[in-house]
Amino acid sequence: MATALPLDLNRLTLAHPLPLDSGKVLEGVELAYETYGTLAADRGNAILIFHALTGDQFVARQHPVTGKPGWWERMVGPGLPIDTDRHFIICANIIGGCMGSTGPASPGPDGQPWGMRFPVITVRDMVRAQVALLDQLGIGTLHAVVGGSMGGMLALSLAANWPGRASRVLAIATTARHSAQNIAFHEVGRQAIMADPDWAGGDYYGGSGKGPEKGLSVARMAAHITYLSEAGLTEKFGRRLQDREAKSFGFDADFQVESYLRYQGISFTNRFDANSYLYITRAMDYFDLAEEHGGRLADAFQHVGDTRFCVISFDTDWLYPTAESRAVVHALNAVAAPVSFVELSAPFGHDSFLLDCPALDRVVKGFVG
Amino acid sequence: MATALPLDLNRLTLAHPLPLDSGKVLEGVELAYETYGTLAADRGNAILIFHALTGDQFVARQHPVTGKPGWWERMVGPGLPIDTDRHFIICANIIGGCMGSTGPASPGPDGQPWGMRFPVITVRDMVRAQVALLDQLGIGTLHAVVGGSMGGMLALSLAANWPGRASRVLAIATTARHSAQNIAFHEVGRQAIMADPDWAGGDYYGGSGKGPEKGLSVARMAAHITYLSEAGLTEKFGRRLQDREAKSFGFDADFQVESYLRYQGISFTNRFDANSYLYITRAMDYFDLAEEHGGRLADAFQHVGDTRFCVISFDTDWLYPTAESRAVVHALNAVAAPVSFVELSAPFGHDSFLLDCPALDRVVKGFVG
Repeated sequence: MATALPLDLNRLTLAHPLPLDSGKVLEGVELAYETYGTLAADRGNAILIFHALTGDQFVARQHPVTGKPGWWERMVGPGLPIDTDRHFIICANIIGGCMGSTGPASPGPDGQPWGMRFPVITVRDMVRAQVALLDQLGIGTLHAVVGGSMGGMLALSLAANWPGRASRVLAIATTARHSAQNIAFHEVGRQAIMADPDWAGGDYYGGSGKGPEKGLSVARMAAHITYLSEAGLTEKFGRRLQDREAKSFGFDADFQVESYLRYQGISFTNRFDANSYLYITRAMDYFDLAEEHGGRLADAFQHVGDTRFCVISFDTDWLYPTAESRAVVHALNAVAAPVSFVELSAPFGHDSFLLDCPALDRVVKGFVG
Repeated sequence: MATALPLDLNRLTLAHPLPLDSGKVLEGVELAYETYGTLAADRGNAILIFHALTGDQFVARQHPVTGKPGWWERMVGPGLPIDTDRHFIICANIIGGCMGSTGPASPGPDGQPWGMRFPVITVRDMVRAQVALLDQLGIGTLHAVVGGSMGGMLALSLAANWPGRASRVLAIATTARHSAQNIAFHEVGRQAIMADPDWAGGDYYGGSGKGPEKGLSVARMAAHITYLSEAGLTEKFGRRLQDREAKSFGFDADFQVESYLRYQGISFTNRFDANSYLYITRAMDYFDLAEEHGGRLADAFQHVGDTRFCVISFDTDWLYPTAESRAVVHALNAVAAPVSFVELSAPFGHDSFLLDCPALDRVVKGFVG
């Protein structure tokens, strides 16, 4: 991912400079986005989907780099819970990302890639860019905003900071603030990337095109463990050996779980930029919706009016456990916002929101349908 | 740790070659060990303590490399739960380790450091070496064998494979087999080490003396998260900033938890050898006491006779959760072995066995006292 994207992406340049929470300003921000379905004449059927840390705008369309199906094809499409026959779906690559939106791999003011000169951004900055995108697309009030994991943080941030912009807010497997443990795991990933000499202080673009693949791979491996439940890992892999009858008494991937993690790490480096990983994890670690609003989470939601909320957690999610969702629900209750909450039972841990979970489909369909 | 230990360690060479589970044989095995208290005339008051993954023989004595107190000074000493006024305590550095016992940094048959030519060892191999040490010290039946975490695995292995060698077996915060998640975390650590170019395939001894410090540091950081509970991390660090009033909008350690983890990682590299980390984690991942005995855990314990067991878990330990201890207890029940079991409440997660936990002191004192 150290080379420029050889892709014909759907992209738009923001008309105005983008002010950032850091006090800096980004000029000429580009957002790469995909849409699905048709915008109604009254422009009232738009749903904005925010993607997760390593996701992108290819929600329900083949990924142009990996060739794989969209990451939420089971949820978004004709007749599906987020129904493209009825709604107009927008999903944009976040700023800081690496699928066409302005990020550390983009040219900076001097024409050279930003690298680590790219400003540190926040979740609110990511949302601010997409609100500007909506403005330019002529979309006022969204029918709904939807996000899982980091996408859920963006959805909550939009609800809190741009009240009235969405009629419905669906936040799945997410949190209103990153915990010490969340930060700790991200810090391990960042240190793994920065420890790789091929990271070269972030200036690895344009050279051999290699970049810190080993460090990024280790970061992905560590993160991946947090996306799965212990029980899910046991069910999927247990202590089963990989293509062998007995332990090798060596350091090859004897166990299936080792082989799986190595594959997850290596394949990730083919589609993701290490600097983007640094910036996005930093933004997530900085996220604390209560702190942004004086320290009390309910105050973040005091202007949401009659926006309807739906909060969904999974019982096996130990990255953003149900208690984090409850904190959001309690804050919404405190301001008498209409909110429904459900903890779904699913064996897969945090990644349940991406996987086969019919109960999730029903809740999503009921809320946004 | 890439240079030879500049220490005058208490060491013994095994009289016989050590057969390994891999089928290989280690010649001239050295074991570095410390003793505390006095061996009784009838040699009946010996307690063998097995240390954990990154522990060593300096249980209750200042560490000669770090200058820090022994790792279990709160538990082992005159008048303490493991009472050196009454018992003779032995703790040996495990083979594969790096505090004086034969391991990857030791000279191989050609006089050069073993490095990755060192044979892959198992938990049972580590125990076998220490049983040989006991033989040479003239100690037959131990009053007790005690271990926490990996040390608990060694204690269970000794009980299963050398029945009658210890009258009491105390296994704390441990498991009879490494789970998929346990293996996954270790594999991340190993990949972090091996990704470091300074690892150099394990041949980093004798050169600049540097070794894969960055990789080892990342491995330690990832592991360290698993030693603490989410609640403990939140209580200890929360989202508090490190020596600053506001976020820096940069990649320094803004949060205390980041600073803490970085320190844990870096300080670890001053006292631990990366290749030892590879070999010991591999041995732990291979550990499956049931598999060693035909697949049924109870069969591992069928010859334990009237050996008394005590199994202790901690309610906040998510590395080796209580369910793992229960599996051990159920297996012991199945062979009618005398076993007591307690799940202690402690806020610190897996590391509770090393920290201030008065309830643990009482149980240990009651069992081995």
